[in-house]
Parts: sequence; structure tokens; C-alpha cells
Amino acid sequence: MQDVFDYIERHRDEYIRWLQALCRQPSVAAQNRGMAETAKMVEGLIREIGGHAKRIDTSGYPVVYGEFANDKKKTLSFYNHYDVQPEDPVELWDSPPFAAEIRDGRIYARGVADNKGNLTARLAAVHAYSAVRGGLPLNVKFVIEGEEEIGSLHLREFVDAHRELVQADGCIWEFGYKNADGSLQASFGVKGMCYVELVCRGANTEMHSSHAAVIENPAWRLIWALNTLKTPDERIHIKGFYDKVAALSETDIEVLRQMDYDEESTLEKFGLDSFVLGLSGLPLKEKLIYQPTCTVCGFQSGYTGQGKKTVLPSEARVKLDFRLVPDQDPFEIFRLLRRHLDEHGFADIEAIPYTMTYPARTPLDNALARSVVRTAKQVYGTEPTLKPMSPATGPMYILCQRIGIPAVSVGVGHFASNNHAPNENIAVDDYIQGIKHIAAIIEDFAIQE
Amino acid sequence: MQDVFDYIERHRDEYIRWLQALCRQPSVAAQNRGMAETAKMVEGLIREIGGHAKRIDTSGYPVVYGEFANDKKKTLSFYNHYDVQPEDPVELWDSPPFAAEIRDGRIYARGVADNKGNLTARLAAVHAYSAVRGGLPLNVKFVIEGEEEIGSLHLREFVDAHRELVQADGCIWEFGYKNADGSLQASFGVKGMCYVELVCRGANTEMHSSHAAVIENPAWRLIWALNTLKTPDERIHIKGFYDKVAALSETDIEVLRQMDYDEESTLEKFGLDSFVLGLSGLPLKEKLIYQPTCTVCGFQSGYTGQGKKTVLPSEARVKLDFRLVPDQDPFEIFRLLRRHLDEHGFADIEAIPYTMTYPARTPLDNALARSVVRTAKQVYGTEPTLKPMSPATGPMYILCQRIGIPAVSVGVGHFASNNHAPNENIAVDDYIQGIKHIAAIIEDFAIQE
Repeated sequence: MQDVFDYIERHRDEYIRWLQALCRQPSVAAQNRGMAETAKMVEGLIREIGGHAKRIDTSGYPVVYGEFANDKKKTLSFYNHYDVQPEDPVELWDSPPFAAEIRDGRIYARGVADNKGNLTARLAAVHAYSAVRGGLPLNVKFVIEGEEEIGSLHLREFVDAHRELVQADGCIWEFGYKNADGSLQASFGVKGMCYVELVCRGANTEMHSSHAAVIENPAWRLIWALNTLKTPDERIHIKGFYDKVAALSETDIEVLRQMDYDEESTLEKFGLDSFVLGLSGLPLKEKLIYQPTCTVCGFQSGYTGQGKKTVLPSEARVKLDFRLVPDQDPFEIFRLLRRHLDEHGFADIEAIPYTMTYPARTPLDNALARSVVRTAKQVYGTEPTLKPMSPATGPMYILCQRIGIPAVSVGVGHFASNNHAPNENIAVDDYIQGIKHIAAIIEDFAIQE
Repeated sequence: MQDVFDYIERHRDEYIRWLQALCRQPSVAAQNRGMAETAKMVEGLIREIGGHAKRIDTSGYPVVYGEFANDKKKTLSFYNHYDVQPEDPVELWDSPPFAAEIRDGRIYARGVADNKGNLTARLAAVHAYSAVRGGLPLNVKFVIEGEEEIGSLHLREFVDAHRELVQADGCIWEFGYKNADGSLQASFGVKGMCYVELVCRGANTEMHSSHAAVIENPAWRLIWALNTLKTPDERIHIKGFYDKVAALSETDIEVLRQMDYDEESTLEKFGLDSFVLGLSGLPLKEKLIYQPTCTVCGFQSGYTGQGKKTVLPSEARVKLDFRLVPDQDPFEIFRLLRRHLDEHGFADIEAIPYTMTYPARTPLDNALARSVVRTAKQVYGTEPTLKPMSPATGPMYILCQRIGIPAVSVGVGHFASNNHAPNENIAVDDYIQGIKHIAAIIEDFAIQE
């Protein structure tokens, strides 16, 4: 592989330019900003490096589908997305979120880690391998959707309508990180999600807060309702919530025991003294990987500007994100939540479903996993950390497990990449290393049985 | 008085223009918008109608002090303010908040009810009375501050430094309303206030919500902390909170029993089915007038924009307004709140004090009260409703009760004036009637023993 690796090093600046160009094009799905332009740009890049590409319409944003070679025995697919999270709070960024500025060996941009760095690294790997070897040893497919950050609303519809396009012998999933110690993580699953907004309404107008002695306050009602959902012991009190959480096997525990999680670096990075409930070691890792969550992502009511304003709010809204583990069903969780609110005297609180994603896991022993691990040792020089499931979420079940495709996730981020947060970044060297790793996987997976 | 009333009717359009001009000048103290311009405008108006006026500096916004006549036996003072609340949410206004548009007999503007309508009505009354009678039968003083909506932060300093300027035999307080049945309210006190912002901090940055399994969420912590403060039964659980609440005398109950509160109109106006705890009748009025409150005026954490964003917030903030009744002490309440948070495991939550206002009450039987009631019957044709205390707040204690001045509050608002809320308004006819009422009080109070 040294010939391909050398080629990648010589084209280093070009591949960085690809990434910067893509990051400088905003593509915020939640706000419908720059989506068509970005899809077109990605389609153009695939064509430029010799692939067949098309934008395939869905009921939402189009999927960019790309294909390289089509006469080989084996097929490897890549799942990525061209949309990014909103960039606010923009005042906390040290450089503009869409400037893709390089400082101290890192590229800073909204989406550079999630997910544009991985997308261009994979395209660069295909480009380099083809250029050096005159072709690819297996068929390569790219499924690049535009709605991952808003819950992959139409991916199931796409997969069902284009089953032959997504069929593959293995899929490299969209994300991946280095641990604090520099070793690579390989993930074999994702948590599911039930993302909901709760809306509590009071009077038909905001009013002077002197009325609050006798008029109900929707902010208080929402606080009381939330308090019935989860208590400071981190227990979620929705009846039936934990019923389908799969028991852990001895292997699950063993993998968890060997999984790296650098507690000290994590606490230091985030300026914290301890984790929730003072957890550490195996129980901490078990909570991170195998336990579902109920997270307040946003709360808004009344006057939140400068200074004081004495108002009684007319509405209160909370955005809640439940991360689910096998075999929880997001639709069932939503029904249980609705029933919980009804039974606790909060039938008036509206629950608006946003995202419903099933959790997913691939067994650790399969051909693609073996290729990923073997080539990781070759490129990174150390054994990768195996993560049975990522605490993050994605539509892996719809695109992979549901139709029998093994999925493994590796990528160019690091443990402080600040996904979804200000100053999102990746290291330039990790990016180049990631390109080499994908090139090596392409070669290795082609000859694996 | 018919001569003065006729003069007021003839000058109706002029007095409306005064009010519109003042409303078109924004004066948002919380945001330091237009404060100097407004103080100058008010000072100019007093001079234009023949008074002595000066802007007196404080450590905050200046007080505009005005004086008419100074050789009479008796002195009547007026307390008003030239600052207004912020106008947001501006999208809920049917006309621009500073346009002072007249529609269907009402003037709509931020501050028109609170407090610019009362301010110009009182100046208009002085103008009309002086014009018709060639002078005033008593000394008149205006104390017009610029910080009422941000808690009258420097009024105590002003009163202490200018005791002789504020001395009077009676004070007409800043606000007043008509009930839903068209009768006039006269108030004899105000609730106090302890306004606080609570800030709960988590990690040093917002992060991807997949971390929420193991990293503490400041939004959840603030929700749990708030839940310990007040429960759905409306009981406030801060130890010692109710200790200084004065017991009600038989007279207090009797006045309350006679006090008008139109439950049906209030519920209908605000689109509600019931009051808190399903209260009605005397218990409802008792809660409104004699019970302290704890109100969430604003709550902000994490992502509150359009669509979904899966973040773990780094901070959560709530603005809390405690309305206090005699003899609660706002400074003591703040100390009790701090102790409560500490004792319930929330020592890390910062409590920022904004406003500390003492509650105040004037006995119902005094010369000014008799003048107000007698002239109200003359102008409005019906007996006014006596309100032993308003559920609203103001610095009455500092300017009146503390230095022995009886205070009564009447004004030109109505029960649906939307103070502090979108579409704040007063009826043009109420404004003109209010001018007549003040003119009549000036004559009547001058001859009262």
C-alpha cells in the first residue's frame, strides 16, 4: 500500500482544499440553508474523480448516490451525509463557522467532523487508489443523505425504493474518532432516538406577572411535568421505558471492560470535577454505551433577554432527546411518554415527535470488521478500540441491519472534535491518516473471505 | 367643575397628541434605549404648561421633578415613571409598539397604560385647571422616575437626598384601571418584589447530546431545583417564606368581599377555563391580593430555535419573580432562597438579585382617599371599587409610607390594558375621563380637612 500512501501524501494539499471548499458551503438542514448547492457540489466532486453520480429525489432533501466500478465480486458502501447542525451559539466560535480556518494543525468548521471530513476522506481514498492502481478491486457505493441532522426523515423511503442501489457486502458508517490516547475507535452500532418537543400553553397572551397569583403558569407546569420524567438519580420514570432494554451478555461486558474511555481527559476538557452520580470505570462505560437517556436539549419560556421583565409566560417549550438502546422502539417510547403525561395530569401538554430512529448493533465478528481492524494496525500502528455501540445516533438500522448488511464506523474525528458545538474541528494529520485507512480497507476487504 | 371639564373636552385632540408623542419615543430602561431623550421630552412638557422642571441625576437614570405653585397650604404629589418594559415578543403586536396607533377608540403602544397615559393625563389636568381658573388651589409636585420597570434601583437614594422635594400631604400613585364592568378601581397598596435570576452551569461548552449519558445537564439540575421551590399545589417551600405574612383583619376580609373581580370576563379574555387550583370567590381574591407568589418569568437553556438540535446545554437560566405582601422583607426572602438552594444540594446554582422592593399599604380612611372616592362618583357616575392592595409592585413604601405620606392609586387603564404584554392599550375616552378625575381631585383635596 505504500505506493497509494505516498500518492495521498503528495496530494495532501489538494484533499485539504476539497474539504475546505465543502465546509465553506453551509448546509443546515434544520434551516433549509444551502442544501441544493451542497448536494450539487458533492455530486460534482464524485464525477470529477471518475464516479457515476446522481441526485435522487426524496420527499425531503435529495440523496446523492455515487458509484465507482460495477463489475467486481464484492461491494463496499459508504454512508455519509452532506447536511450539518446549526452553528449557533455563533458568538462562542473563535473563527467563523463556515470559514474552515486552519490553526495549529486543525481545521475548524461546522460539519468538518460531522460529517464532511469523513465524506471527503473517503472520496479522496477512492481517488488515490484508482489513480495509483488504475482501478478499484471492488465495487464502491456512496449513499450521502441530506437529512441526518434532522433525523433522516426520508431515508427509509429511499432505501425501500432503491434496494438494489444500497445492497452491499459491508458498509463503512459515517463517523469515527480517535481516543484521547491517539488510538482509533471502531464502532459497531448506534443508539436510537426519540426526539420530541413538549409544548405547554397557558393564557392566550403573555401578561403582567402580577396576574400569576391566580393564572396558571405554563413554565411551572412544564417544570413539574419534566420532574415526573426523570429524577436526580438519573432514573427515567416512564412506565415500561426500560422493558425492552436488552440484557448484557458476558461478551458485552468483556468488550466494555477493554473499551478505552479516558475519564481524566474528558473531565479536564469539559472543565468538570466528576461524571453524573460520581460514576467511573465499568459502571460509567456501561451507562455511556448501554443505557438509554432522557436529555433536555433546549427549554424556552417567557422573557429571556437582557435585564428583568415581569411577565407571566403564555407558553413553555422543551426539546427532549431520548437516546435508545437495543431493543427499544422509538415509536413505542413516544406512546409511553404520551401515556405518562396523560396519567400524571398533563394531558394538555402537546408532544410533537421530530425524530424516530431505531437502535442498531452489528456483531463484532465479520469480514468487514476484520479488515477494519487489520488495516487500522497497519495505518495507525496500534490496535483499535472496539466500541460495541456508539452513544450517538444514526439511521444504521434502516440502511444496514434491517437488510442484512454489516456496518462498522471509523473516521477522522478525535475525542475533542466538538461535534454539534462551537469550534468543531479535526486535525489535518488525522484527516490524511483517515484517507490512508479507507484506501487500505478497500484493498483488504476485496480479498477477505 | 363643569367649566374645567368643558375645557378638557375642547382640548381633547391636543391631550391625545401629547400622549402619542410621548409613546412614540421609546424609553426601555432594561436596554438603555431612548432614556435621555424621553427625560428631556417630559421636562419640556412640564415647562411648556407653566411648571418648574428639572432633571435630577441619580446613580442611574435621572428623575424628572416638576413643581406647580408653591405658596399654598396643601401639597399633592404625583408619582409616575417615564420608562417602559421591553416590547418583545414584537411579532405578536398588531401595530408597531411605538406607533401609538389609534384603532376603534383605543391607543396601542408600549407604555401607553404603564405609565405614559397616566403621566400625560395628570399633566393635562394641571394644564386645564390652571388655564380655566388662572392657577391651582394647592401645590402640585411630580416625581417621575426612569427606573420603575427595572426595580426603581435608585429611588431610595433620590428620596433620601431630596426629602423636602418629595414631602406632600398625599400622593396619587402611578397606575389605575377600570374593572370589566366599567367601574373605577382605587388601590391603597402594592406588593413587594424579590426578582432573581438563577444560573446553573454545566460543562464549559455545549456538546453533542450523546454525552448526556454521563455528563450532568444544567437544564435538568435547574428543573429539579425549581421543583423544590414550588409544587403544583401553589405552595412555596422555602423555609420561613410565609413567616412574616401579616394575618388578615376582619376589615381586610370585608374590603376583599366587597372588592370587584370579574372572574368570567378575566377567564374569557385570557382564553382560560379556570383559575389556579380551581379557585373562585373570596379565596381567589384573597390569593390575588394577600398572597405572595413565585413566578417563572423566563427560562432559557440550550437550543431553542427552529427544528431539532441534539445538544447537551452548558448553562440554564431562569428569571424568578417573588411578589411579596406585608410584612415580608425582600432582602430576607433572597437570603432564605439562597439557604434553600444550599440545603437542597444546589449550592452551585448562582442567584443574582435584580430587584428588591418592600410591600406597602395605606389605611383606607384618609383625606386623599375621601377626595378620590367622592370625585370618582362625580366623574364616573358610580362608586369606585376599593382595592386594599394591588397585586402589582412599585416603590410606594420608599416614597410614601416610609415617610408618612398616604398614597392612593387611580388611573386611565382598563382591565384588558395588556401591561407588559403585546398590544398594550388604553381607551381614548378613559384617558379623557382620567384627566377630568385628576382635575376634580386637585380641587377637592385642596379644601378637605
